[in-house]
Amino acid sequence: MSDRVYNFSAGPATLPESVLKQAQKDIWDLFDTGIGILEHSHRDAAFDRVTHETEADCRAVGNIPDDYAVTWVQGGATSQCYFVPANFLPEDRTADYFQTGKWANDSIKEVPLYGKVHICGSSKDTGYDHIPVGDEVKYSDNPVYVQFTSNNTIMGTEFQTEPTPPEGAFLVADMSSNMFSKPIDVTKYGLIYAGAQKNLGPSGIVLVIARKDLIAEPVRELPMMMQYRNHANKEGRFNTPNTFGVYLMGQVFKWILERGGLEAVREMNVEKAKIVYDFLDSQDFFKPHARKDSRSMMNITFKCPTPELDALFVEQAEKKGLTTLKGHRSIGGMRASIYNAFPKAGCEALVAFMKEFAHEHAGAVNA
Amino acid sequence: MSDRVYNFSAGPATLPESVLKQAQKDIWDLFDTGIGILEHSHRDAAFDRVTHETEADCRAVGNIPDDYAVTWVQGGATSQCYFVPANFLPEDRTADYFQTGKWANDSIKEVPLYGKVHICGSSKDTGYDHIPVGDEVKYSDNPVYVQFTSNNTIMGTEFQTEPTPPEGAFLVADMSSNMFSKPIDVTKYGLIYAGAQKNLGPSGIVLVIARKDLIAEPVRELPMMMQYRNHANKEGRFNTPNTFGVYLMGQVFKWILERGGLEAVREMNVEKAKIVYDFLDSQDFFKPHARKDSRSMMNITFKCPTPELDALFVEQAEKKGLTTLKGHRSIGGMRASIYNAFPKAGCEALVAFMKEFAHEHAGAVNA
Repeated sequence: MSDRVYNFSAGPATLPESVLKQAQKDIWDLFDTGIGILEHSHRDAAFDRVTHETEADCRAVGNIPDDYAVTWVQGGATSQCYFVPANFLPEDRTADYFQTGKWANDSIKEVPLYGKVHICGSSKDTGYDHIPVGDEVKYSDNPVYVQFTSNNTIMGTEFQTEPTPPEGAFLVADMSSNMFSKPIDVTKYGLIYAGAQKNLGPSGIVLVIARKDLIAEPVRELPMMMQYRNHANKEGRFNTPNTFGVYLMGQVFKWILERGGLEAVREMNVEKAKIVYDFLDSQDFFKPHARKDSRSMMNITFKCPTPELDALFVEQAEKKGLTTLKGHRSIGGMRASIYNAFPKAGCEALVAFMKEFAHEHAGAVNA
Repeated sequence: MSDRVYNFSAGPATLPESVLKQAQKDIWDLFDTGIGILEHSHRDAAFDRVTHETEADCRAVGNIPDDYAVTWVQGGATSQCYFVPANFLPEDRTADYFQTGKWANDSIKEVPLYGKVHICGSSKDTGYDHIPVGDEVKYSDNPVYVQFTSNNTIMGTEFQTEPTPPEGAFLVADMSSNMFSKPIDVTKYGLIYAGAQKNLGPSGIVLVIARKDLIAEPVRELPMMMQYRNHANKEGRFNTPNTFGVYLMGQVFKWILERGGLEAVREMNVEKAKIVYDFLDSQDFFKPHARKDSRSMMNITFKCPTPELDALFVEQAEKKGLTTLKGHRSIGGMRASIYNAFPKAGCEALVAFMKEFAHEHAGAVNA
């Protein structure tokens, strides 16, 4: 680690060091072909192998059955905000959305271009500090699908279990920031999408897992590139994909499998998050943003007693090799993103610095 | 070069070796930040620098004035097939398209979803063997824009000069396969787009150069991610871009500038292409596909006397380290793609092998 720092970035984010080292080699020469991964045609034998291994390893990691397509598209999760209603929502029908932060709002905004939208649960009034559950959830009458953001990177909240959509509706999830951080039952979903740049790889590629029957035909005429089926039917190579992204996601899937799969990954993540949350719960100096019942295992949000101390905290942390801790401008404070590849030692170093900082500034605040 | 081969891939394609070596370093640690290029937040100071340098170097390479936006999007050039009419073409207006091959046809196909399309010139009847000029070109009455594919990768044809659109219409060009292979006067264009994976960088990123007044407002309500202005107004960071793609394009721009800019690059490319075309013109064994007046400087297409010999040629070339020479399935034969970063020595090696192969098999054909 000597020359590398603890990178708490919310995404693009820390990648496994073994994956970076493999990428360094493969950029020069992949599979002894004499051609680097960036330079291989997306139709050649080497990239056939990359494509097939990435899909197979993804299926192995996520235990994804054959009636689900595994594919990838470009444009970021933000482009999925319009792909989803465009493909699935007829003009006269309604889709239900959970409103739990920025990404949910971005999705909600695009729906009226295609059909009707209903907010089935919202934590807007309390600053998106929790995930709506129980009585807070009211579905519309006969929605086509129910969409939720499984983890809210900015707010530091996470659905502890997926919502249960009403009979006849399927579930759509933006899992960009907690994909493959724990075991997942994909059979509960109609469509899952995840921008890769948090847990899965580099930016510029979105993993899509979709029930094949749902994507067999879009509900309206659409450009070729907007139809999920085109990407799914062509192994993610309907046009030239982000080939390096496909390759790197594949390397990360192999890394997950080597670690023992998603159950083992969850254990690592629980342990890491517990180090920070246990400390937050043991003191009064830092205030966590997310409600305890809605805490994210991936993004931990908290504040100092004043914005000035927040700024000082971020600045001093940076000098100690604890980088990119500044919270999103919409809520301020700090955010520690600790995705799969983020090391436990980084969580321990963060808590050690938090203790030190709180000790030093507690007096100033009480005064 | 010892461990690397001559890679004639049409894209993704050969990149400059100095750029690959820099990328190997920067994947581990960019600008001594202790964080690799794949792991930097698209909002942090290091990536600010990458973004600003990539844009500035692109402007320097292409001599791009301030009234043009320089930005990048995802989804491949294939997504531009619908972005263009969606942003620019009102339902009751017409856009004119040159039909010169697969990419032109893909673009033409999407237009009726948004407005009317007119084919202003076509070489379909002669197997797309040339670029329509002079009397072959008939514009519609008052088109909004005229679109053409400046280089046809599959066919090996290239516009020798850009078409002149009728008064009131602006020019749109898909320059994916010859962008920055020679000097360009961007002021003749309304919008230029180019998938990066041939001359500019890796796949998964599209360079967009657009007249700012034209993209100020789309002609219809569109999803956020489909509006050029959103990408242009946010330095290509409206959402998380393909950060590695932005970085690598920037490295390629620096490589072009180090070589003396586009005039020097053109000289290199003219010299390389001349080696192969001069040989083709000196013999009768191999038949070129493209008409002499429409030849591409980037993709050289030719055939042996029989498909069996084509297959043998590709197979034997591969063994000599001349790889990915197989032509596109739609026209067969061979295709030698010799983009900016492809070395002159590779062109010489190709011609040496072509001579040898022709000598060996000439008898079999004449018999």
